[in-house]
Amino acid sequence: MSLLVTGTVGIDTVTTPYGHVEDVLGGTAVYFAFAACQYVPVRLVAVAGDDFPGGFRRVLESRDIDLTGLEVRSGSKTFRWTGRFVGDMNVAETVDLQLNVLAEQPPSVPAAFADSDTIFLGGTDPALQRELLGRLRSPKLVVCDTKDHWIVHQRDSLLKTLRMVTGAIINDGEARLLTERLNLIEAGEAILDMGLEFVIIKKGEHGALLVTQNGPAAVPAYPMKAVRDPTGAGDSFGGGVLGYLAREGKHDTETLRRAMVHGTVAASFTIEDFSLRKVQDLTRAEVNQRVSQFISMLRFD
Amino acid sequence: MSLLVTGTVGIDTVTTPYGHVEDVLGGTAVYFAFAACQYVPVRLVAVAGDDFPGGFRRVLESRDIDLTGLEVRSGSKTFRWTGRFVGDMNVAETVDLQLNVLAEQPPSVPAAFADSDTIFLGGTDPALQRELLGRLRSPKLVVCDTKDHWIVHQRDSLLKTLRMVTGAIINDGEARLLTERLNLIEAGEAILDMGLEFVIIKKGEHGALLVTQNGPAAVPAYPMKAVRDPTGAGDSFGGGVLGYLAREGKHDTETLRRAMVHGTVAASFTIEDFSLRKVQDLTRAEVNQRVSQFISMLRFD
Repeated sequence: MSLLVTGTVGIDTVTTPYGHVEDVLGGTAVYFAFAACQYVPVRLVAVAGDDFPGGFRRVLESRDIDLTGLEVRSGSKTFRWTGRFVGDMNVAETVDLQLNVLAEQPPSVPAAFADSDTIFLGGTDPALQRELLGRLRSPKLVVCDTKDHWIVHQRDSLLKTLRMVTGAIINDGEARLLTERLNLIEAGEAILDMGLEFVIIKKGEHGALLVTQNGPAAVPAYPMKAVRDPTGAGDSFGGGVLGYLAREGKHDTETLRRAMVHGTVAASFTIEDFSLRKVQDLTRAEVNQRVSQFISMLRFD
Repeated sequence: MSLLVTGTVGIDTVTTPYGHVEDVLGGTAVYFAFAACQYVPVRLVAVAGDDFPGGFRRVLESRDIDLTGLEVRSGSKTFRWTGRFVGDMNVAETVDLQLNVLAEQPPSVPAAFADSDTIFLGGTDPALQRELLGRLRSPKLVVCDTKDHWIVHQRDSLLKTLRMVTGAIINDGEARLLTERLNLIEAGEAILDMGLEFVIIKKGEHGALLVTQNGPAAVPAYPMKAVRDPTGAGDSFGGGVLGYLAREGKHDTETLRRAMVHGTVAASFTIEDFSLRKVQDLTRAEVNQRVSQFISMLRFD
């Protein structure tokens, strides 16, 4: 049960109809880690600049997140994202993006992390995803994300990465872009044909769809009124899924279905407040309670 | 257990990426009736013109649908809709609409139907909905649909109708238009405040949301690859919901939740083929099997 996540650590500025926050903790690996650490200890591999606030580091350290792999690079600046959500908040608009340290050398995997068995490769350059994977001795479950940019500009490299992973967790738009299929089950099946055992397609407020050789399975999102900031929902979903799979130590279809429930609940907490405010102090009891509630909502026999 | 439905009976011409059909049986009350008659006998109240094909009538008569209330008006023409679905088929584009007999006098409720206890008022003029309701002696459960047109142009009249019904089954877009709330739970609660016990908000391929005083409950759509023609999906959903509620003889929150499963399954069959092709010969065993499968997909404990 050793879960390693790679991805971004960032400083976000976010505006939604419910408020505005400046220079807050963000990044895909961070949202993922806070969700996953409810299930197993998390090993984080990422790089930040020397402007990365000590307060952010302490928030991460307050949970079961191992920061041995968080490189704070001297003379570099942390990745920054400024975005806003308007209307029904379904789509994030990027107002400003500063890659900063992400445009430099990638982080390296500490020797102490080489024995990790469950791996989540955030949606970085597919060549880098493979390089990171090469540093691990005996990964048992490898799941990746990807982004539009890599589908369009590094398709062959991405396909190479996909052949090396067990599963993928990606957005509906990316699944369609990657496969040129509109129907998401067909898209999922086309992704399986790329050499994966499973794919989970995230549909934002519309839930998620699992596709395996055993067919499709859907879950709705957790119905919520109090959505303040959707930032990180998808990454939290991935963290809940992988955290649960790592704890269970298996990824058969039944376990994957259940994992989607945990991902859904993780995302639901994240979007209740800005940045990591809601999840940074979240207890396992609160998570379990909402999981039970969600399962009850979907029990019909 | 007597379920009465009012709505349209029509002749449709439909184009989707999967084919084209001309002059086929359609209409909201027709789709509703084929779904609901899997649960209880259905009484149909609608009006057609004398061009209504005898073949269509025989298809309706082949199921447990009482056509005493189907007026075939001499000298009038049947309602016609020509539409197409493109891309992800989420939205129907109306190419041509001929109200014909729908622009004349509404149908009347036969005396033999006055004792109906479960009523579905299709999305016609809210004044007409109230008039139809006035013909019924002791309705126990009254559910209505509505359309954008009535929300915009007959709002006060619609609010009057809403105060007289038990529940509503409407689209997400209509719920938002009616309440000016983007969040669907908030929209649902605002509709409850208009005097209803429950509202079910249909989200097309994204499932459905129930809102009652006991909170929200969501179901995903039945995940399907073979979607050929989405026409009538929402009406079939309503038919499955009301048919189940009529059979159960109650509409508490638990029963409403289960009813959404039956509505979802009814819609899933309808969209498998054009017009009523798939559902006109559908057996109760096929319905039950898919209901069980859907419930299993959503069982996580």
